[in-house]
Amino acid sequence: MKKPLILITNDDGIKAKGLQALIDVMKNIGKVVVVASEESMSGKGHSITIRTPLRIKPVITENGYEKYSTNGTPVDCVKLGEQVILKQKPDLVVSGINHGSNATVNIIYSGTMAAVLEACIDEIPAIGFSLLDYASDADFEPSKKHIKTITENVLKKGLPKGVCLNVNIPAVKESEIKGVKVCRQADARWVEVFDERKDPHNNNYYWLTGRFEKRESNNETDQWALENNYISLVPVHYDFTAHKTLPEITKWKFDVK
Amino acid sequence: MKKPLILITNDDGIKAKGLQALIDVMKNIGKVVVVASEESMSGKGHSITIRTPLRIKPVITENGYEKYSTNGTPVDCVKLGEQVILKQKPDLVVSGINHGSNATVNIIYSGTMAAVLEACIDEIPAIGFSLLDYASDADFEPSKKHIKTITENVLKKGLPKGVCLNVNIPAVKESEIKGVKVCRQADARWVEVFDERKDPHNNNYYWLTGRFEKRESNNETDQWALENNYISLVPVHYDFTAHKTLPEITKWKFDVK
Repeated sequence: MKKPLILITNDDGIKAKGLQALIDVMKNIGKVVVVASEESMSGKGHSITIRTPLRIKPVITENGYEKYSTNGTPVDCVKLGEQVILKQKPDLVVSGINHGSNATVNIIYSGTMAAVLEACIDEIPAIGFSLLDYASDADFEPSKKHIKTITENVLKKGLPKGVCLNVNIPAVKESEIKGVKVCRQADARWVEVFDERKDPHNNNYYWLTGRFEKRESNNETDQWALENNYISLVPVHYDFTAHKTLPEITKWKFDVK
Repeated sequence: MKKPLILITNDDGIKAKGLQALIDVMKNIGKVVVVASEESMSGKGHSITIRTPLRIKPVITENGYEKYSTNGTPVDCVKLGEQVILKQKPDLVVSGINHGSNATVNIIYSGTMAAVLEACIDEIPAIGFSLLDYASDADFEPSKKHIKTITENVLKKGLPKGVCLNVNIPAVKESEIKGVKVCRQADARWVEVFDERKDPHNNNYYWLTGRFEKRESNNETDQWALENNYISLVPVHYDFTAHKTLPEITKWKFDVK
């Protein structure tokens, strides 16, 4: 059987330990091409680069896989990977392993998941993997077996049209991981806290920080799964429509005078 | 009755004509505070600024409204507006009027709609307005009455928890607008086309361009509404879960060997 062509990206940048961990797993599954940003793109969401030209730098060709860095965002990396480097659709796009959670509302700020959604829009099966540990030296070993199993499921069964996967992994010992739980995105938010400082010229500047606020603890959610040492697997799509609300708002009157 | 406090932002930057058009409408409805990016933030999606300090510059206080520019993204502007400038939740956040469509899949790349979704996460009623004309001198006059009516509806009736509105307006004469159609997001995508060039040092660089590809023409969609001279109004939310897919994927086996 022909090996699947797998495009790998992330949002922590080409040098991140989590990216290497994902490469390690994927090398055993298919033919791997890596296209990732030179710098960290955390929090870049679904940003694309319109006003700056994009550049691609070959990094290495080793152990049978190719690696390129770009000055673009994760979404740019998927576009460049598909159109300029591969000149074909890969069989799979995987993104990560992210250093830190992309569960709950984090998905909306995430460059890792933006790359996955971009592939999904292009009708390529795609999975984002994140470990709940922001440390640059986080231990990705316990994640690897599970990532392999989830990826093999997707390659075997495919994904429904317009659907991709958001997988988050608790940062616990391998023996403590209870398995994979298919679940929905929990409602939560970041309460921003701005750290206000003064520069040497006495002008204010602000660092964006925040604290996480759960808004539900339902056991059908990714947040619950992760708190209970399950790997959360949320099927996600890019239809933002609040379908349930349509009948109610359709009754509104919009006549202009 | 106390006038509602309205926070206005956009993604075309503080100097955009569309922003001024939105201010013109909102001044007649409530107390207005404007917080927008110094530069254009088109295509920045739900990007936030983590690694650079944010700064706020008061621009004017005129005609009874305050205007501030920041070096941040539209999402940063909502956060700074709420936490640092207003130090309270506004009654409404409006974003736009965007120069160009944010209907269909454009929502995912849109800074305008990212600001709206951010307000929605913070439980503030929020509406994004976009005119289907990218020109910097686009004519926003025909939009104004409709924006007023839609805004008054939201202020009167509120919005369901976790729901905000994505409003797109066809670029036609006032007399040709057929009214407002409540609809869902159409499936579509941008097929990226990279314009490959060589710099004076003979290195390749790439400009991201693309062509829009419709993937459906159902009359329940925003795309259909706009093509038929209706204003499209899509209630949107930030739950990315593909709920319909949950039962199917729950059947998958994820045992690790």
